[in-house]
Amino acid sequence: MQPHTSTPIVQTKHSAHACLKPVGVAEVKLTGGLLEERYRTNLEASIPAGWQQLWESHTVPNFYVVSGRHPGEVKGPRYIDSDGYKWLEGASWALAHHGDDQLRQWVAEFVDVIAAAQEPDGYLNTQFMGERTSRRFTDLNHAHEIYCFGHLTQAAVAHHRVTGERNLLDVAIRYADLLYRLFGPEGRWGTCGHPEAEMALIELYRETGEKRYLELASRMIDARGRKPPVLDGSHYLLDHAPFREQREAVGHAVRALYLYAGATDLYMETGEPALMETLNALWHDVFMRKMYVTGGLGARYEGEAFGLAYELPNLRAYAETCAAIAGFMWNWRMLQVQPDARYADMMELALYNGILSGLSLEGTRYFYMNPLESRGGYERQAWFGCACCPPNIHRTLASLPGYLYSLEEGTVYVHFYASSELNTRLPNGQPVRLQVQTDYPWSGDISVRPSAGRYRLALRVPGWASGAEVRVNGHSADAEAVPGTYLVLERDWQEGDEVQVHLPMFVQVVRANPRVEEDRASGVLMRGPVVYCVEQVDVPDGNLMELYLPADTGGLEAQYDSSLLKGVVAITGSALLDTVAREEQPLYVPMHRYEPPRWREVQVRWVPYYAWANRGASAMKVWLPLALQP
Amino acid sequence: MQPHTSTPIVQTKHSAHACLKPVGVAEVKLTGGLLEERYRTNLEASIPAGWQQLWESHTVPNFYVVSGRHPGEVKGPRYIDSDGYKWLEGASWALAHHGDDQLRQWVAEFVDVIAAAQEPDGYLNTQFMGERTSRRFTDLNHAHEIYCFGHLTQAAVAHHRVTGERNLLDVAIRYADLLYRLFGPEGRWGTCGHPEAEMALIELYRETGEKRYLELASRMIDARGRKPPVLDGSHYLLDHAPFREQREAVGHAVRALYLYAGATDLYMETGEPALMETLNALWHDVFMRKMYVTGGLGARYEGEAFGLAYELPNLRAYAETCAAIAGFMWNWRMLQVQPDARYADMMELALYNGILSGLSLEGTRYFYMNPLESRGGYERQAWFGCACCPPNIHRTLASLPGYLYSLEEGTVYVHFYASSELNTRLPNGQPVRLQVQTDYPWSGDISVRPSAGRYRLALRVPGWASGAEVRVNGHSADAEAVPGTYLVLERDWQEGDEVQVHLPMFVQVVRANPRVEEDRASGVLMRGPVVYCVEQVDVPDGNLMELYLPADTGGLEAQYDSSLLKGVVAITGSALLDTVAREEQPLYVPMHRYEPPRWREVQVRWVPYYAWANRGASAMKVWLPLALQP
Repeated sequence: MQPHTSTPIVQTKHSAHACLKPVGVAEVKLTGGLLEERYRTNLEASIPAGWQQLWESHTVPNFYVVSGRHPGEVKGPRYIDSDGYKWLEGASWALAHHGDDQLRQWVAEFVDVIAAAQEPDGYLNTQFMGERTSRRFTDLNHAHEIYCFGHLTQAAVAHHRVTGERNLLDVAIRYADLLYRLFGPEGRWGTCGHPEAEMALIELYRETGEKRYLELASRMIDARGRKPPVLDGSHYLLDHAPFREQREAVGHAVRALYLYAGATDLYMETGEPALMETLNALWHDVFMRKMYVTGGLGARYEGEAFGLAYELPNLRAYAETCAAIAGFMWNWRMLQVQPDARYADMMELALYNGILSGLSLEGTRYFYMNPLESRGGYERQAWFGCACCPPNIHRTLASLPGYLYSLEEGTVYVHFYASSELNTRLPNGQPVRLQVQTDYPWSGDISVRPSAGRYRLALRVPGWASGAEVRVNGHSADAEAVPGTYLVLERDWQEGDEVQVHLPMFVQVVRANPRVEEDRASGVLMRGPVVYCVEQVDVPDGNLMELYLPADTGGLEAQYDSSLLKGVVAITGSALLDTVAREEQPLYVPMHRYEPPRWREVQVRWVPYYAWANRGASAMKVWLPLALQP
Repeated sequence: MQPHTSTPIVQTKHSAHACLKPVGVAEVKLTGGLLEERYRTNLEASIPAGWQQLWESHTVPNFYVVSGRHPGEVKGPRYIDSDGYKWLEGASWALAHHGDDQLRQWVAEFVDVIAAAQEPDGYLNTQFMGERTSRRFTDLNHAHEIYCFGHLTQAAVAHHRVTGERNLLDVAIRYADLLYRLFGPEGRWGTCGHPEAEMALIELYRETGEKRYLELASRMIDARGRKPPVLDGSHYLLDHAPFREQREAVGHAVRALYLYAGATDLYMETGEPALMETLNALWHDVFMRKMYVTGGLGARYEGEAFGLAYELPNLRAYAETCAAIAGFMWNWRMLQVQPDARYADMMELALYNGILSGLSLEGTRYFYMNPLESRGGYERQAWFGCACCPPNIHRTLASLPGYLYSLEEGTVYVHFYASSELNTRLPNGQPVRLQVQTDYPWSGDISVRPSAGRYRLALRVPGWASGAEVRVNGHSADAEAVPGTYLVLERDWQEGDEVQVHLPMFVQVVRANPRVEEDRASGVLMRGPVVYCVEQVDVPDGNLMELYLPADTGGLEAQYDSSLLKGVVAITGSALLDTVAREEQPLYVPMHRYEPPRWREVQVRWVPYYAWANRGASAMKVWLPLALQP
């Protein structure tokens, strides 16, 4: 199978208000390092195990039942089809580099039965067929029908882009045409309680050139917050106000972030200032007030929702894996609108922490919630009754190559550093190859070897990278490497040129805005984009609950350990243990009877947050109180 | 109407394993001060308005419908009868001192229709009669039938004790006899998803001498945690383990605390060591690890449940009013078992803070949740769809007089200080009168004038009362006033004797166990048993979110202001405002870029927590960060 030539995740090529143009997933090959390892584990372990789970959870069998090919009963929950579609999207992206016969056969088999299950009018949802036909589109708030359509369509677009085959795309088109008849300008107002179809419809428009899909997406965004409400008027469903009047991130986090991502797709096509005004306000609210240091989003268990500003409990962080992924997807779209490195910073933070934490190292177990503290007993699971997170990881990791670079007229943007080969053409048709070698994020040294020709390289200097340096063939670059920007090198590149990026990797103590009550007078260790945590198993000599970060962290050592957690840089050194028996003390005491900590130095090991809970269900903490405090 | 002579809330007179014996609600008259004001407001405003709400919410009309006296439909929710019964319990206690014709008529009318609604076999629940008869006792997990029986019975016992009339008591007895047939030793195992009936059945046993009710209560406690489960086996319903194996407070807080209270009642009758072992462990877990500084209990919104140890978020504190009351009821029972002042300390903390906060100053609006921080917009409501809290306040305040004192052979215990007259007889028949005069909790000076005779006075020295002094007729008492104990004075009291208790009332900064992440490096102001908070309206010159407690709080002034919040001691003085524009700063920064606070002194007023949100829906904080921190 030949990969199709145009395999971007988001096709902004003709989007008038997207500065950046994509490279295809097939145009980037990961060649080593952490991301390549996670990518490969996804292909070799997660996606195959996922296929099994889709059978065992009755996700795939449902299609066999409704198509009449197998006898049996359809099983729920109502959003179950989407789990299959997300897996299929991931498997399709995987085929860009992974011509494995087995995987290709699974994909073909699944696509075939999906197509067979579709009704003649285009309808397709295993939960509302047969006896339940009359309930179609009767519960837009909670039935997830249009949401499932969205995931079908994203899978179809990926499948078409990678394989060049139209069979699944045609299924999506038929369904989209039905939705257009029902909810388009000639139909009734309608949208889904769970946004998702907005992104999908716009991508379908980009793939087919059919403007009606863009129009329908736009109408679905406009359907929210109407009076009388099209949905239920709730914050939970983002139906509390017209989208363009929304200024605060509220409600169900994944729903909200998918909506914001879809609206960004719409902006890329229309350039409507009111949309960007809303998106900028929401972005500020989410990433300046409501994000965990791990990139986790959605603080509350109740309603899987955003909390108020600065409401970020650690032990009870919800931080659903899907929400971190949704934030990643939204930032990617914002980044294509305008190459502001802050979007890439947030993506990288989420990727190396709150997203990768969702997957076990061996690749077959998942977190739904990603707390920043555990008292022990919390472990990843092989699948869930509500299984949105696992296949969201599948598709995210399988499409990772497509996120590393973007193009602009005459410019290659390097967003994320990973050993990789880029082989693409600039918008003007000029071929460009980049070879990147690095041990990032364990090392901050990156070698970029561009192919010959005149073009610009825009190299991201991460926001955390104070003291970054860029050299060309051993000589300092003219431009200054300002953290949180792209450093642009314009040259007539010669074969053999090497750009050396040096991002100083040192252990930093990071503090939270003091408005975050739960992180007050506390610190977290970071090294580059990687957030560290301590697991009880690495505090052999004390109780994690009594552990403090010393005032002087200069003695902490960071070292790569290939035998630990599939190879990580661990941080080791002294921390302080409060030896006062807090367990025995009252909850509240007057200041004059308050016993300040009595310190004992202990040796501790910090490991990357994403790798926690891979050595049993140990207690864990990200934030440690600072020993400076009174 | 003559009050019946024996009106204790919990009748421990013949309970072999209760050290303390009760005084009657009718034997104590509140004569002034804060508790008397709240007591009177409850009688004059809350209980009458509650009667109206019981009509408007269809609670009372349901009984008219099922009794066939009025046409119409029965309305839910399933636990709605209990709201009426709790009000009726409160109204009955109120009649002990409040011979108001109107109230007496309401009580009589309600009792009459309740009796008329009862089925011949004793069954009585408006939600499972008529067409819904077949659903009786088919959902012990969630139907709340036995729970409603419990509240009926508590109302019936109160009504009988205060009025001497048997009509409601006989209704309860008939229903109890039905339950005994169904769930007693000859019946099936059964109990209620919502504990409550355990306390009620034991009180019914105490009122009637009928041992079967004790037996049934015991069996209902034994029904939990069986295999296979009688309920659903969940932590939420306290069905995860046999009661005697439970060691941690988990699940729905009100359910848990009612169960613990009922088990304490059982212990008072049986003295079974295994029960007390469990109760001690649970008490330690609740009050040493899971209680808010306001006495609030049940941290989590999800499941209205206890969190893990030290999981005490302020902004998202659930702290249901009913849970604080349930904790108060449990501690009262533990205190009767054994006069350990720590139980009274916890009761007093809850009463003056997390319970009183549930009622508006004018007495007709209620909090269900009692958070320790608000960003504004949170206000009390006149009633709720789930209206458990309002009538729980009615019955608690109406029975308050009965909580002030207990008796032991030859001893009068003074648990709570309030201007009041006690007129009782010791267990040996000796008449005793006490006259107490005080402005407590605004003042710590208390005058106790005992009637003549030889007996002991056991005066509670609250745990917070460092430097307490007790004098008799102006001379130092021989015994030392140790905080957290009862000081016992044994004398041959003469007419005219005066005991002067001096509890130094000063503003204290209280700190939390450092394991409580949300309160780390923070402090709360307390004065005596009263917890203070700051409302935004009292920080005219800054944002409450940026307010810090200064290192030196010596300059804070506490002064009674009769015009403020119906008369409170307010605290005024300087606090510090961080003037760094935190709103504009990133959420997370490396230590070397962390901007420490820049202080500006501002004048602030603190008010008692219980009185917050009585001047509009202002933002509010209990805990303030200490300006000492780095």
